[in-house]
Amino acid sequence: MSFKDRTAIVGVGLTPYGKRGEFFDIPQSDQIRGALQIALTESGLDLKEIDGFCSYSVDGNDPGMLAPALGIPNVCFSNMVFGGGGGGTCGAIANAAAAIHAGLAEVVMCFKIITQPPHMRFGASYGSKAIAANPYSDFHRPFGLISPVQFMAMLVRRHMHRFGTRPEHLAEVAVSTRAHASRNPLALKRGPLTIEDHQQSRMIADPFRLFDCCQENDGGGVILVTSAERARDLEQQPVYIMAGAQGGSSRWGHGLTMQNQPEDLYTSAGHKHLADRLYKMAGVAPEDVDVALLYDHFSGLVILQLEDYGFCKPGEGGPFVEDGALSWKGGRLPVNTHGGNLSEVYLLGLTHIAEAVRQLRGESTSQVEGAEIALVTSGPSNLPTSSLILRR
Amino acid sequence: MSFKDRTAIVGVGLTPYGKRGEFFDIPQSDQIRGALQIALTESGLDLKEIDGFCSYSVDGNDPGMLAPALGIPNVCFSNMVFGGGGGGTCGAIANAAAAIHAGLAEVVMCFKIITQPPHMRFGASYGSKAIAANPYSDFHRPFGLISPVQFMAMLVRRHMHRFGTRPEHLAEVAVSTRAHASRNPLALKRGPLTIEDHQQSRMIADPFRLFDCCQENDGGGVILVTSAERARDLEQQPVYIMAGAQGGSSRWGHGLTMQNQPEDLYTSAGHKHLADRLYKMAGVAPEDVDVALLYDHFSGLVILQLEDYGFCKPGEGGPFVEDGALSWKGGRLPVNTHGGNLSEVYLLGLTHIAEAVRQLRGESTSQVEGAEIALVTSGPSNLPTSSLILRR
Repeated sequence: MSFKDRTAIVGVGLTPYGKRGEFFDIPQSDQIRGALQIALTESGLDLKEIDGFCSYSVDGNDPGMLAPALGIPNVCFSNMVFGGGGGGTCGAIANAAAAIHAGLAEVVMCFKIITQPPHMRFGASYGSKAIAANPYSDFHRPFGLISPVQFMAMLVRRHMHRFGTRPEHLAEVAVSTRAHASRNPLALKRGPLTIEDHQQSRMIADPFRLFDCCQENDGGGVILVTSAERARDLEQQPVYIMAGAQGGSSRWGHGLTMQNQPEDLYTSAGHKHLADRLYKMAGVAPEDVDVALLYDHFSGLVILQLEDYGFCKPGEGGPFVEDGALSWKGGRLPVNTHGGNLSEVYLLGLTHIAEAVRQLRGESTSQVEGAEIALVTSGPSNLPTSSLILRR
Repeated sequence: MSFKDRTAIVGVGLTPYGKRGEFFDIPQSDQIRGALQIALTESGLDLKEIDGFCSYSVDGNDPGMLAPALGIPNVCFSNMVFGGGGGGTCGAIANAAAAIHAGLAEVVMCFKIITQPPHMRFGASYGSKAIAANPYSDFHRPFGLISPVQFMAMLVRRHMHRFGTRPEHLAEVAVSTRAHASRNPLALKRGPLTIEDHQQSRMIADPFRLFDCCQENDGGGVILVTSAERARDLEQQPVYIMAGAQGGSSRWGHGLTMQNQPEDLYTSAGHKHLADRLYKMAGVAPEDVDVALLYDHFSGLVILQLEDYGFCKPGEGGPFVEDGALSWKGGRLPVNTHGGNLSEVYLLGLTHIAEAVRQLRGESTSQVEGAEIALVTSGPSNLPTSSLILRR
């Protein structure tokens, strides 16, 4: 009953990339309209064909406001991945695919715009009253665990302790990602970065140094999904959605630091459970993946995801990334060929999907030769996380 | 590709019904746990089989908090209908059905708990700062349009002007609904109600009198959805989901009072567009519906929905409801046999689905003889609205 290959991504539109707070004064609906226009133009679809909306992370642009603002006459479907953070980006695409597969809608626009307000930052400590109602934070905050970088540092530190993963392995991720960004004219951080630069940068939350941490930005985009049948008549080569998975273990995420987690979960990115379902739906194995766009809010989590998605055995993610293994050219597994959250831009992983589409259309600035199958992941952050397998 | 008859409702659990604010101090997760236990027990499902969550109206119990709180080990799917208000209740069930149909999950719990805080009421004026950011309200509030009852009153007043619908027609809805409530021991308002009582009650927003307006309550529930295949092995007679539709016209809802609406839309409940898709997916016609559970926040909207769903022609909803047409026994179309939002309880329409399940299992306190097919609607409020057709 799965939606394997029944739907496709047919258009992508991104806003300009801004600094954190730069677009705060521009109404999100205006930014969505701009991105949508780009996506429509490249796809050859008409605005009036859009009949569904998907988003995530408690998006405020609900269809009741957005449909009239954009001039979309009728909405047949709209939903959101349930939960905050960047874990839902791929999940929104999967929701669109499921809806189209079920006949609920024909052309769904998946979207997200990030405009960080002056009084709150994604990466800042969870000190606001808004978070005070979260029963889990009561177990973190008295001990000084108040920010995402600290939570994720715990996992990677444990991984280092258990498996001997080294700071240089984290540096490999940052450096290979920057090398890709340097080839992408859109990327915000394109200056050269060496292992030494990384090792000399200031410590943020041990073991994460400055260059292990993603940027924080304003911007976003629109991704258009329709049926495989409709996709065949459009302007772009369709990028078929082979599989989508979402969710995770309830002992990962919010429960990250407070519960007796099994050791395997503690040293993982919490994606193992998704990976199994994802590969099963797609009918492919890790060795079939030509390029991987792995959510990189923090370098070390890329290493943990490589293990969760079976590119190497548990604990072997560190050695796996050595010697340019993640490079677009000649690497064992090209990863984040756009420059990722670390160096291109941080838009909750939306650009990871955009880059997968570019790779499968043969349009990346770090094009993997003959790329046919791409893995894209969202999160790890809170539950749910999500991921996709796309094909040319 | 539709999910017609591929999934079923297999368990329903409701909390006790409270007055507005009565359960505000009880954590929603505790209330969900109680309702879930009832649903699991009646279904024969085990807690650990649940692998998906669906909700609506910007629910705060996201899976990252709820899954560990309930002891559900793995989440494979979770989403929310996109948008606030009571329009998403049926849509959440349709989201679950689509996910199961797509192979994303096997047993999805759809849930909602309402606990109204002391400082805010659903039915109160939209005066809070939270709403100030809504660009549409700027066009309403200076003219005194600040509360849901006023918005809905506009539609029904227009309907009366255009078609000659009379206050007694609204009274018919209130009275027939109360008669059903009086037979339901759970209902909060069971005292006798006559047309005269209705006509003598105080005016709230012309043409709506006190008895045209729903209650406001605390409480909620859980509805379990699984595949038709799995449903066959469980304790209850499955209630199959024939069809689900969601959405609406962008010129209805938020745009209700500010835009040049076409006359047909102005005098409708905004469900016509959904109705066409719903009947098409189900493969049935209005005359096949044995019982209708129509969202009744305000009596007049039931009349408009009767037209939108094709039980009578546009403008004929008033005469249609005369002479006990909505009664469980001998009525032309039994409507809201539980007592509806008006007299049983107002839980954003969750109990309309619960009553449809009772009717199709033969367990209603106002059982429609031989009921095989039920229509359930959510909203009309903002976009999206939603609806379901269920069968025995």
